[in-house]
Amino acid sequence: MSNKIYFTPGPAQLFYTFEEHLKRALFQDIPSISHRSSTFIKVIQETNEALRELLALPENYDIYFLNSANEAWDRIVQNLVENSSHHFANGAFSKKFYDFAREHGKQSTCTEVGDGHAFDSWDIPEAAELIGITKNETSVGFSFTEEEIAKLRASNPDKLIALDVVSATPSLPVDFKNVDTAYFSVQKAFGLPPGLGVWLVNERCHEVASGRAKSTSLGSYRALPNLKKFGDKNQTPETPNMLYIYLLGKIAQDMINAGIRRIQNDTIYKATILNQVIEDHPQLSHFVDSKPHRSKTTIVANAEDTDKFITFFEKKGIVLGAGYGDHKKNHIRIANFPTHSKESIEMLCDLMLKME
Amino acid sequence: MSNKIYFTPGPAQLFYTFEEHLKRALFQDIPSISHRSSTFIKVIQETNEALRELLALPENYDIYFLNSANEAWDRIVQNLVENSSHHFANGAFSKKFYDFAREHGKQSTCTEVGDGHAFDSWDIPEAAELIGITKNETSVGFSFTEEEIAKLRASNPDKLIALDVVSATPSLPVDFKNVDTAYFSVQKAFGLPPGLGVWLVNERCHEVASGRAKSTSLGSYRALPNLKKFGDKNQTPETPNMLYIYLLGKIAQDMINAGIRRIQNDTIYKATILNQVIEDHPQLSHFVDSKPHRSKTTIVANAEDTDKFITFFEKKGIVLGAGYGDHKKNHIRIANFPTHSKESIEMLCDLMLKME
Repeated sequence: MSNKIYFTPGPAQLFYTFEEHLKRALFQDIPSISHRSSTFIKVIQETNEALRELLALPENYDIYFLNSANEAWDRIVQNLVENSSHHFANGAFSKKFYDFAREHGKQSTCTEVGDGHAFDSWDIPEAAELIGITKNETSVGFSFTEEEIAKLRASNPDKLIALDVVSATPSLPVDFKNVDTAYFSVQKAFGLPPGLGVWLVNERCHEVASGRAKSTSLGSYRALPNLKKFGDKNQTPETPNMLYIYLLGKIAQDMINAGIRRIQNDTIYKATILNQVIEDHPQLSHFVDSKPHRSKTTIVANAEDTDKFITFFEKKGIVLGAGYGDHKKNHIRIANFPTHSKESIEMLCDLMLKME
Repeated sequence: MSNKIYFTPGPAQLFYTFEEHLKRALFQDIPSISHRSSTFIKVIQETNEALRELLALPENYDIYFLNSANEAWDRIVQNLVENSSHHFANGAFSKKFYDFAREHGKQSTCTEVGDGHAFDSWDIPEAAELIGITKNETSVGFSFTEEEIAKLRASNPDKLIALDVVSATPSLPVDFKNVDTAYFSVQKAFGLPPGLGVWLVNERCHEVASGRAKSTSLGSYRALPNLKKFGDKNQTPETPNMLYIYLLGKIAQDMINAGIRRIQNDTIYKATILNQVIEDHPQLSHFVDSKPHRSKTTIVANAEDTDKFITFFEKKGIVLGAGYGDHKKNHIRIANFPTHSKESIEMLCDLMLKME
């Protein structure tokens, strides 16, 4: 790796043990061995076990490997939605899940509020079979609270709930018992290169999918019954991204060893000092008004002159995130992921306050 | 990498320049930079240009990145087949493409002959919109000849032809003018880890897809019109497997520098001596009867005692492929890819002849 530090919210700074594990993976020929060999079956098993422990994933969940969170939207719609889903959107990514459902021809609906705004209506059409929510909207730094998710669960016991945990997991505690499926890509908080998605699925999803499979096509190799058929044997239908599955398991294990509580507490500490800087800085202000909804992993600030910030830090070898989409020119985004040490965030805060 | 040599037909031996390029990629932070940055747009552009030159890809083709050949089957069916496709199957992979189409609910048909048998009937139902053929059936070492493909093109000018070039490209010359779409995964002849697929698509496919898009869903982020929208700007709809796209471009460029003619001629030489060993060896015989259809990149032999061969070579740090699926116990498969030097294949041949 170069000497730069990436505070971009994904693709992001690689996890600090990444290169070490990569070397070991190559030494063990992980990219060349058979994906049906006992060695690789053990790799999948270890990655699954590490993720299960790290995320405190309930027993009734299975873990499947996809290639991106985009693919998770695709597969959720294909497998779990017959006619309609309902989405809560207040940023580019939550909106995209809704768009995907519509593109698949579903009669989906959306509660759309302005980017970064909190939701005040929780009405959901009766027809919706699945509710799509986003734990951490990476584009604008808005987080659903655990209370809101629990409330949605309580008032919609019969609908499936799909939770986007991209850039949330494992930094923010998530109670997966309140949802039925969740997904993330590894290039955010896990500090891996992009190219792998993880799909978490409980037994209610399996029931819905097998029910639907009797009368309709759920796709092919990544139809849920097929994923389950192979997943139950710690295998995948196709030759998967073996190297990243290995690396994800190793990094998840490192995070377990470091202590997930510590990682989550450090996340709060680092978010607190970053938020303080936004409050103290004359040229910055919070984008998300509602304090309890401000993301702790993706700090987003309004900046009068985004370029000035980005260029200032670029010269010091520090890469900040620009705003997403329409916000490119008036937001800065700062990732606060497990690989970012307290010291590196403290240094960043100092520099921000010292800049002209 | 360990000191082992993998002659398995995928996942396979990594290309000999892989680690060098990987180091450079990490030094340049390829996995951390933005996938929308000008740096990464240039990576995609360079990879596309290198592939185009290496494969002698006609001007009317576009190149898109998927995650596997399995996904290519999925996307071809979703995007290009309204009601029915027709498939030529004589092994596990050609059969799977047909299975995928059926699983997607298509009324597809299949000319199925025994594994590794040559086709003698070329009749195709009028209803078939697309013909699926497999240049190199990796499971049993059967190759379609270029003449057969040209003949299919000539007698089916109005149907789309999809050619599976997994484990064929770039070792075998393929005239892409005779087909409309082709695809491969990178863990075979390109010597990369698994996790990236490449989809080649000509303008006829775009026409079919945009026509169908008016009345039906082609999926979402990887609907062909969407791939084209981003691809025309050297971008991808989602955050892709950036590292492997970079590495694929570098390895393709290395192959251009080495000379594609030389690679293809060496492939013939290495296949010739391997085939000679199969003829000379008392315990081996060719699986594919028809000589012109024997694969030059995936040499498959009937073996009286497969385990004996595999164990003998394993002790020497050489990994041979077992048979695929039902053939596991009575075939050995030997990959003959660009990373396998003439010397390594000569050594393998010597050892095979010397073994008891």
